Amino acid sequence: MTAKLDPEDLQPVAGGGLLHRRLLLKSGLVLATAAAAGSTHAASDAPAQKITEDLASPSWMRTPGQPFTTYGKPSKYEARVIRSIGANRDLPSNGVSWTPLESLEGIITPSGLHFERHHNGVPEIDPAQHRLVIHGLVKQPLMFTVDSLLRYPMQSHLIFIECGGNSNAGWHEEPIQRPLGSFHGLVSCSEWTGVPLAVLLDQAGIDPKATWVIAEGADAAVMNVSLPLAKLMDDAIVALYQNGERIRPENGYPLRLVIPGFEGVTNVKWLRRLQLTSEPVMARNETSKYTELLPSGKARQFTFTIEAKSLITSPSAFQKMFGANIYEIRGLAWSGRGKVAKVEVSADGGKSWAEAALQEPVLSRCFTRFRMPWSWDGSPAILKSRATDETGYVQPERDVLVKERGRNGYFHYNGILAWGIDEDGVISHVYA
Amino acid sequence: MTAKLDPEDLQPVAGGGLLHRRLLLKSGLVLATAAAAGSTHAASDAPAQKITEDLASPSWMRTPGQPFTTYGKPSKYEARVIRSIGANRDLPSNGVSWTPLESLEGIITPSGLHFERHHNGVPEIDPAQHRLVIHGLVKQPLMFTVDSLLRYPMQSHLIFIECGGNSNAGWHEEPIQRPLGSFHGLVSCSEWTGVPLAVLLDQAGIDPKATWVIAEGADAAVMNVSLPLAKLMDDAIVALYQNGERIRPENGYPLRLVIPGFEGVTNVKWLRRLQLTSEPVMARNETSKYTELLPSGKARQFTFTIEAKSLITSPSAFQKMFGANIYEIRGLAWSGRGKVAKVEVSADGGKSWAEAALQEPVLSRCFTRFRMPWSWDGSPAILKSRATDETGYVQPERDVLVKERGRNGYFHYNGILAWGIDEDGVISHVYA
Repeated sequence: MTAKLDPEDLQPVAGGGLLHRRLLLKSGLVLATAAAAGSTHAASDAPAQKITEDLASPSWMRTPGQPFTTYGKPSKYEARVIRSIGANRDLPSNGVSWTPLESLEGIITPSGLHFERHHNGVPEIDPAQHRLVIHGLVKQPLMFTVDSLLRYPMQSHLIFIECGGNSNAGWHEEPIQRPLGSFHGLVSCSEWTGVPLAVLLDQAGIDPKATWVIAEGADAAVMNVSLPLAKLMDDAIVALYQNGERIRPENGYPLRLVIPGFEGVTNVKWLRRLQLTSEPVMARNETSKYTELLPSGKARQFTFTIEAKSLITSPSAFQKMFGANIYEIRGLAWSGRGKVAKVEVSADGGKSWAEAALQEPVLSRCFTRFRMPWSWDGSPAILKSRATDETGYVQPERDVLVKERGRNGYFHYNGILAWGIDEDGVISHVYA
Repeated sequence: MTAKLDPEDLQPVAGGGLLHRRLLLKSGLVLATAAAAGSTHAASDAPAQKITEDLASPSWMRTPGQPFTTYGKPSKYEARVIRSIGANRDLPSNGVSWTPLESLEGIITPSGLHFERHHNGVPEIDPAQHRLVIHGLVKQPLMFTVDSLLRYPMQSHLIFIECGGNSNAGWHEEPIQRPLGSFHGLVSCSEWTGVPLAVLLDQAGIDPKATWVIAEGADAAVMNVSLPLAKLMDDAIVALYQNGERIRPENGYPLRLVIPGFEGVTNVKWLRRLQLTSEPVMARNETSKYTELLPSGKARQFTFTIEAKSLITSPSAFQKMFGANIYEIRGLAWSGRGKVAKVEVSADGGKSWAEAALQEPVLSRCFTRFRMPWSWDGSPAILKSRATDETGYVQPERDVLVKERGRNGYFHYNGILAWGIDEDGVISHVYA
């Protein structure tokens, strides 16, 4: 943070006023970002003001503050930053809750805001009663208590988990108008720690005929899925900890199968059973769900790996602009195939692109935060971001994705997201 | 996770039965780790069992689970994993709360368990009323609202913050007997995101005579400290977010000064004022506190940078051993000077050492998790860990540190921690 701003730095590097990402490493630049809807901040406020107000001590400096707490919680002034719930009317324990991505920063999702997908509610599991069983094509079926698993060697993965149904409003004919997190927020990023599954499977002894593993949860839907044994041997863990502490109930307490890069439904919560087999079980969630009937008449199935995706979190719908000004465009990118190699941003609807700055550390299968300086002149603009991962895979435009996949599927949407900004600074989700 | 265990792998690499860290990358090894006190787990339980119990569905698989929640919390079965509070009897808003390091895994500290140090309680600040003022040796004093700061470019730091008074029981004549977190837990690790302070100081315009910055918080103690301007220009941020969401009240809501690698007291919470000066203010916390009178009669002052340190989190006091077995020794290491280069572990009280495995990612000024396989034969042992950072600094033995610093200080203790394990598997804090 040493170099000062040079007038040349303010020359656009792409259409619509995108500036070079090196600006973010310079000082002397005043930027505006969109504010959340309902912000107390007046749109006309300058980012900094000369001191004009009375600086007398506020009330909270004149009396002792609140006492110590054994477990903290957010400020009451942040009570609106919550998961939004979308559940089945007839079966309210079946549904989702969304991470408010537009209100968060950095790459960690606080565990209390990690998205949820439940098929029949959150079981309240007594860890002393819970068991994990490994059976099927093994030499010796085994049963583990939770306490016994705590004694095995552990590994941590700082990774995203994304529901295969995230962003499925992208398949709609018309762009949905909601806050970002409420249609793209079935994705969150945590540090997961637990026992490498390979250690447990080797202890049971794998029959050479085994190629699949059927994983089952201890919820009242008895959720199950089939998973390729080779991937589980490679890097899956039986997770006991999320973001340092034991996993929260809604994220699988006391045990969750965590498979880096694989779609959410495969990361079985409340894990209770792993059956080694020679073929998949063809469970509901791998036949009627999480598959796509393609225009060719063939169906995509077992497409476990999350493909590269990115989202601009600010500016985004229901936030507001502060007039013609310099902004920091902010967003998240991720890929189930490895690291994000680059994120490009467009301010002219995709006609031209420029590379965004990536916040370090850039980790495999983890959220990557990107930032881009942008000089908005107040005229209509269309913002897009496009992720490329280390395998060379490039996030597709929506029309390309729809043409390739057709309209029969409802999962695995990773098309480029576009925000339209009009001359009043109103931000809408657009197809462009 | 491919290589299988080889009998040769079980040859000790150092005294007391330490094994090579490569074992942790192999499968086929059954390890035992110490269990928390009060665990429901019987000491004689094998890590895995053959299936003998009735596997009929537990109650939580037979009725729909709990509904969705807008903001999650830990399981009721984890109610004992909390911060322990140590406050002044006459002024209960002055004290500390400790992170239960012995109950956590990975490198992220959940925000609800981040340690606290308050001088007069936690202010309940209305962010719409809060202001940050930059004044003193600047060309133009400036005032910022919280909303205006949200519009500036941001950076994230995934870093530890450690109180300069952490571990001060190490200066006691006799080793204190408490759970690890309750005497070493004034250190926590979060992702902090906010505005680089250099951007704001440059906007105010730094007078060339300025060399110090006096930072002040908006609590009822009006906590203040003096900080070297050069460091603040280098990498300090005015943080608005912790672990993805807005900072919790006890950690400085709405604004905290975060200075990577500097001791906790300098990371001023509830930040409201930054005054540029040409000399330090000599505040209470930099004269009567956070200094050490050395045997020479000189005092150490303004020793901001946290020196390298490591702790074995398991096995640790008040946990219990499972008899002669193979264990995974687990711990945390960190340095305010940069990355942890290596952590060595000793099982014979420091006579011999072997290198532990470091969990990736290893990041500068961040917690680093280390792991070490150990074959305990059931005889008395003394476990130690020793961190070396990328500058070559080596964590000192306690007796070396005490000799160098004398007994007049009560801060900046980073001596090697030793756990004594007796033939009954009872674990105690020892000086050895």
